[in-house]
Amino acid sequence: MRVVIPFAPHDPKTRLSEILTSDERYAFAKVMLEDVTIAVENAGLIPEILSTEIIESQWKIIVDDRPLSVAVNSVLENSKMPMAIVMSDLAIATAESIRKLIESEGEISIVPGNLGGTNAFVTHREDFRVDYHGASYLDHVKIAEDIGVNVTEVDSFRLATDIDVKEDLIEVLIHGNGKSRDWLIENGFHLEVHGKNRVGIHRREKR
Amino acid sequence: MRVVIPFAPHDPKTRLSEILTSDERYAFAKVMLEDVTIAVENAGLIPEILSTEIIESQWKIIVDDRPLSVAVNSVLENSKMPMAIVMSDLAIATAESIRKLIESEGEISIVPGNLGGTNAFVTHREDFRVDYHGASYLDHVKIAEDIGVNVTEVDSFRLATDIDVKEDLIEVLIHGNGKSRDWLIENGFHLEVHGKNRVGIHRREKR
Repeated sequence: MRVVIPFAPHDPKTRLSEILTSDERYAFAKVMLEDVTIAVENAGLIPEILSTEIIESQWKIIVDDRPLSVAVNSVLENSKMPMAIVMSDLAIATAESIRKLIESEGEISIVPGNLGGTNAFVTHREDFRVDYHGASYLDHVKIAEDIGVNVTEVDSFRLATDIDVKEDLIEVLIHGNGKSRDWLIENGFHLEVHGKNRVGIHRREKR
Repeated sequence: MRVVIPFAPHDPKTRLSEILTSDERYAFAKVMLEDVTIAVENAGLIPEILSTEIIESQWKIIVDDRPLSVAVNSVLENSKMPMAIVMSDLAIATAESIRKLIESEGEISIVPGNLGGTNAFVTHREDFRVDYHGASYLDHVKIAEDIGVNVTEVDSFRLATDIDVKEDLIEVLIHGNGKSRDWLIENGFHLEVHGKNRVGIHRREKR
């Protein structure tokens, strides 16, 4: 099964700007991508990266500078089925959680992400198309229904957790076991407990 | 297997105050509790509610007005193993996700919640104790290690999603299929897409 991971290296993860510089956001996006590729590889599959521009990588890079949905749909149109699309910011993905997706028996299996996103899916149907705009999970369920498929939901916290905002970094520090967690620690991030049971993330001042 | 659901009816879900009145927060906490009990029941088990005060319910109520960790530890001390503790605000829990927890083969199996919480666990060890203060997932992993047990992580988005803040209600509207979702809709809540791909939750003005 092909597993394609979309990646947009230009000015990534803008919602982390409050806590990371532009260069740091690029570096962190890149280590998250590496963690996802490693999880896919450890699940026994060969990751391919669908990037908006050329990047250095040991993996096959497909370059397509069009918007995410257009580029993914182009891959879907030109691929043998089944195939999987997995987002590049699933920093706590593990081989086991990727395997849960890959082994799902639905014609179209989707991992919902936090707040309505579509973090990964496998389709056996060559006529499924994506639209990542808005509450994409609901849209994808509807698009699948329109071609006569009931979506199979893949229930995974590790794959539901995409990293967009500062608070998401807490999940990486707690549950990560790869390069993303190491990167955060090397860059001074640590957990702090506030009050009774609220966990926060903080960064040590650089010297 | 006993399944105990802690519940604190006095002034619940204070972080939802910006969007719900005190009475509404109580009503919503109660329907979330009902959804959790129904999921447990549909998984083939009999829920018991560990409440800080007497409430009306069709289920067995154990009243203990002490703090959460103390009350749960008292249940653990006085119960046959294995037993499960499941939080009452897992509004998108399903029978299938509860079954995944119950059928986990670890000596101690934990469902991590968002931001370091411990949303549910099953213990076969009568000497496991809880401490819900702080990043309780990490604490519970450590407490288990101290009694010689490697925690088995149960990876579930549905059980990782506890409802604390306004944004969490988005998950209930998207993924809920029980009374909590119905309650939100009846009370005027609906999704709105902002900008490119951010989903928000809004409430219609009461007339």
